[in-house]
Amino acid sequence: MARYKLILAYDGTHFQGFQRQGKGRTVQQELEKVLKQLGWEGSSILSAGRTDTGVHASGQVVAFDFDWGHSSAELASALNAGLPPDLAVKEAVEAGEHFHPRYDAVERSYRYHIYTANQRDPLRERFAWRVAPALSLERLQAAAGLLPGRHDFAAFGNPPRPGGSTTRYIYSAGWRAEGDDLYFEVHGNAFLYHMVRRLVFTMVQVGQERLRLEDFASAINETRPLPPGLAPAQGLVLVGVRYAANRQEAVRIMKTLL
Amino acid sequence: MARYKLILAYDGTHFQGFQRQGKGRTVQQELEKVLKQLGWEGSSILSAGRTDTGVHASGQVVAFDFDWGHSSAELASALNAGLPPDLAVKEAVEAGEHFHPRYDAVERSYRYHIYTANQRDPLRERFAWRVAPALSLERLQAAAGLLPGRHDFAAFGNPPRPGGSTTRYIYSAGWRAEGDDLYFEVHGNAFLYHMVRRLVFTMVQVGQERLRLEDFASAINETRPLPPGLAPAQGLVLVGVRYAANRQEAVRIMKTLL
Repeated sequence: MARYKLILAYDGTHFQGFQRQGKGRTVQQELEKVLKQLGWEGSSILSAGRTDTGVHASGQVVAFDFDWGHSSAELASALNAGLPPDLAVKEAVEAGEHFHPRYDAVERSYRYHIYTANQRDPLRERFAWRVAPALSLERLQAAAGLLPGRHDFAAFGNPPRPGGSTTRYIYSAGWRAEGDDLYFEVHGNAFLYHMVRRLVFTMVQVGQERLRLEDFASAINETRPLPPGLAPAQGLVLVGVRYAANRQEAVRIMKTLL
Repeated sequence: MARYKLILAYDGTHFQGFQRQGKGRTVQQELEKVLKQLGWEGSSILSAGRTDTGVHASGQVVAFDFDWGHSSAELASALNAGLPPDLAVKEAVEAGEHFHPRYDAVERSYRYHIYTANQRDPLRERFAWRVAPALSLERLQAAAGLLPGRHDFAAFGNPPRPGGSTTRYIYSAGWRAEGDDLYFEVHGNAFLYHMVRRLVFTMVQVGQERLRLEDFASAINETRPLPPGLAPAQGLVLVGVRYAANRQEAVRIMKTLL
């Protein structure tokens, strides 16, 4: 028996999010189904965190104990042969027996893709949010520049546990443009539910001059509430999760940040 | 009555190509259906050329005569309201009454997207071909460097009319890499059926050292036949079509090239 760590990629379009639930097709359910076909007898895989309905991933991380008996590369190939086209294992490795994809994580990275166009674009709309009229890149960048550091993001989402902390640490955040494509990349220790989509929605309001940069700053620095709204799920990708060497190291890093 | 020119984008995954046919869902059929709902009474739109089943477009061009009576921007919006999610009008403009999207074209541009990875990637496989093992970018670039100029591409595809010329003029062609993504961009006066997919397939053989660069050169310069094979349709996008000012100018340009 060994603990395996998988890096997963999925097109979230036809998933009701990551987490197994009573009804609806989820990533966890599809993966556990194929694991069972390979002889896995566990009850539930561990994950780095949930993703919402319609959100994509190129670097979701899960772990589970399994008496596999072949190489981890063969595990990846065997899983991919059974998984549906919109879900795949990018990499499988043996992890330490205590590895936990959520508790050992010290950084999550997300990317949000917007395109500005007056008409929709079938080649982009599966993985991006179309915004019109055009946005000010400078205003988006000014807003993103306020994010790094430790902030109480209560105005931007709910904690996983009711009553839990809403303070998170952002390592870096920024917008870049390629033609009429705009990409927001953000790296943080962890994120509240809906936090990235709510940040993007609000920065877009700033970029369209429908919200003052000062109001965005007050929401970040003083948890002043903002008008509701979420950027659509299809523009968001969980790009990756970074890990400390072990649990103690992860706890130490989190303590210095928060 | 005016002649309109449309720039179309489509996700080719669920189309049986561009051209209307007896059965199967096609781009032309879907577009003509919505045009008729708007009161168009023509029998067939004109196009810059067909695309194969599964091939995408971000810049296909079509034209038709229509007594519309509103602005061309309103035509684009009205069409997009009726078209399915995988087909959209990016732009509509009034063209000259003699404009023909195929005969006035002096350049077509295609892009082909490959990614090299040992496992499949659901975020890329809709619009790219996964190739493993990895390719030599230098060998790909050396092969592409042989393409510009006037060549008889008989080894790479069939002409639209049986017995038609297989000579085509390539303005430029090249490969670039971004991480494990490889993009081939090619600009030519026109292309034989399957020509881009056959070129890509063969260059990949060269890149994997399964075919000598000399054999690729002989196929281009002496129409020496090559082993059969096509790169899959889903990696190919018709990026755009460029036009001369008028028919006479187009004919003049073609004469200097061929």
